[in-house]
Amino acid sequence: MNYELNNIPVRTEKPRTKGFTMAMDKGLSLRATEDFVESCSDFVDIVKLGWATSYVTKNLNEKLAIYKEAGIPVYLGGTLFEAFIVRGQFDDYRKVLDKYDLTFAEVSDGSISLNHDKKCEYIATLAKQVTVLSEVGSKDAAKIIPPYKWIEQMRTELDAGAWKVIGEAREGGNVGLFRDSGEVRQGLVEEILTQIPEERIIWEAPIKSQQVWFIKLIGANVNLGNISPSEVIPLETIRLGLRGDTFDHFLGEIKL
Amino acid sequence: MNYELNNIPVRTEKPRTKGFTMAMDKGLSLRATEDFVESCSDFVDIVKLGWATSYVTKNLNEKLAIYKEAGIPVYLGGTLFEAFIVRGQFDDYRKVLDKYDLTFAEVSDGSISLNHDKKCEYIATLAKQVTVLSEVGSKDAAKIIPPYKWIEQMRTELDAGAWKVIGEAREGGNVGLFRDSGEVRQGLVEEILTQIPEERIIWEAPIKSQQVWFIKLIGANVNLGNISPSEVIPLETIRLGLRGDTFDHFLGEIKL
Amino acid sequence: MNYELNNIPVRTEKPRTKGFTMAMDKGLSLRATEDFVESCSDFVDIVKLGWATSYVTKNLNEKLAIYKEAGIPVYLGGTLFEAFIVRGQFDDYRKVLDKYDLTFAEVSDGSISLNHDKKCEYIATLAKQVTVLSEVGSKDAAKIIPPYKWIEQMRTELDAGAWKVIGEAREGGNVGLFRDSGEVRQGLVEEILTQIPEERIIWEAPIKSQQVWFIKLIGANVNLGNISPSEVIPLETIRLGLRGDTFDHFLGEIKL
Repeated sequence: MNYELNNIPVRTEKPRTKGFTMAMDKGLSLRATEDFVESCSDFVDIVKLGWATSYVTKNLNEKLAIYKEAGIPVYLGGTLFEAFIVRGQFDDYRKVLDKYDLTFAEVSDGSISLNHDKKCEYIATLAKQVTVLSEVGSKDAAKIIPPYKWIEQMRTELDAGAWKVIGEAREGGNVGLFRDSGEVRQGLVEEILTQIPEERIIWEAPIKSQQVWFIKLIGANVNLGNISPSEVIPLETIRLGLRGDTFDHFLGEIKL
Repeated sequence: MNYELNNIPVRTEKPRTKGFTMAMDKGLSLRATEDFVESCSDFVDIVKLGWATSYVTKNLNEKLAIYKEAGIPVYLGGTLFEAFIVRGQFDDYRKVLDKYDLTFAEVSDGSISLNHDKKCEYIATLAKQVTVLSEVGSKDAAKIIPPYKWIEQMRTELDAGAWKVIGEAREGGNVGLFRDSGEVRQGLVEEILTQIPEERIIWEAPIKSQQVWFIKLIGANVNLGNISPSEVIPLETIRLGLRGDTFDHFLGEIKL
Repeated sequence: MNYELNNIPVRTEKPRTKGFTMAMDKGLSLRATEDFVESCSDFVDIVKLGWATSYVTKNLNEKLAIYKEAGIPVYLGGTLFEAFIVRGQFDDYRKVLDKYDLTFAEVSDGSISLNHDKKCEYIATLAKQVTVLSEVGSKDAAKIIPPYKWIEQMRTELDAGAWKVIGEAREGGNVGLFRDSGEVRQGLVEEILTQIPEERIIWEAPIKSQQVWFIKLIGANVNLGNISPSEVIPLETIRLGLRGDTFDHFLGEIKL
């Protein structure tokens, strides 16, 4: 850090399994990707090329090379996996992972109906090829999954070979873990945490109030995802108690 | 595209008259303009320098040269036209178009009261100099224009020489075609479409839910405008049914 | 400006004490900083590195050099000052100002409880080292400070040596001067203006409707702060009556 401040929460360091930040790139230009890496590489553990943006991204190989050079793994959004599955093109999807030399993949069912055993089979199959992130939760705000089912799905997906499970929120932070308004479904999160180790979960939390809520509940080193590139540095300060929102939270005994 | 997916909607190709994306540049730096062109030129058909931002833009010639080199025409926002008109400086406006070697211009009356015959005269005069886009709709949320008047104005403006007509929404997407809340005035749009050919209309739709609504109504190749540079790639995926919002819409008969 | 328009409000020129724009950099990369300076340096009078983002900013010296080269002074957000104060590290804070050769500093108490005499002492002490901006208003939406206290604090802070006082709003524009909804606390602002010279105040106004409100009340040359880099050019057009929001306001006698 640039100067000394006492009593700052201790952050994990890369490679992190806790205190992990997953950023979402939804179409950065090559130069903007370089800029992102220049300013944020210490704070970003993995990048998702949001949903199926990789399909239309120009100079995709060059973009992937920039992230690789910076030591940041990249994966393609779960919606792309689903787009291949719904078309019966799973083998083609696996070839795409190979073609771009990807080491991570997401398995999700946010936009499709997928038998859960079948989903776990995809996880198991892909886990032989890459590190798998699996996602629980629907992109359809009307589909409310009860907490016991979130837990059951998370557990079986981890058992099937997922490295971590992701709690769905979309770019907008208004489905899955959250209500339409962006408010956290607190009871859901707390119940999940009684059963699933928190280091195995990445919480999608694109909105500041959501990030603050998770940091207050779980600590500076909670795993958070769907962070916009421009919000990575702000998030880091929230983790460290250096923004108004968590300023008091980490002060503990310090008094004026 | 970067890999093969079956059953993707067929997009028109440049130069497009349908499936047209108009992006709004409200002050990109030169390098950001280059980056925008690098990553998005296939998907952007025309760029508007929003309202009168061109008045204060530094290195305007250099910016215009970047777009020209990329084959993307540029026009100055309608508010600038109105700023000249309200000051009695129409001839000066025409000289500005010449000075910057512009091939498109917008005629609008979103911020001024302009007799409609007079508006059509401006369209006819400018149509001898450049390709004219004319805009219908007020920037004043309180001024509700009934559907029959939208249609009458659109028709007479096209007759006067406008290449396409634009449905007003502003950068915020909260006037004209939309309610304060951003919700589409659906009856208005549907009534317009009974009378005006959809390829002659550009719908300003800066908000994702608005883009989704138009794509579901009219199809992948609807003309949309006021798209933020950072939303051009996301929009392209929505057009292709590759984002959650339109994922189901284009699947048709495909089943798991 | 790029072309001639009659009857445009006269803007002050740099170095400005009125008509001042304070922009907030919350983590721009080096190249984005260069781009910001390239496109906006005429319109930005001072840059704040938001809250404590400077703690985690990479290449901080290089960033400061870019702003220095452009003649734009930089200061560190008030939350950073408070982070040092709450830890009893005021001397360390002063050393940070020296280490980075900063000529401005902010004194605030938005996140801490600070006896007001003590706050004025900090202002007086720092005023011997740098130019001080002091901020009035809490970051806690629940802490409503009555107008007479805003005035009393602003006056005593100016008397203690502050160059200008800042009205708090945060990045979100939803505390201090504004209600939760972002709406201006109009009575508060008007009462402050009966007692404190407007050129001594910088109004944080990150949201467009807030900028418009202040420009309509005070004029093109009101001092505004917490402007996002991407909104500096749009703000400049609002000041000049060249965006729909203030288009009518400055027209005066001009008629079609």
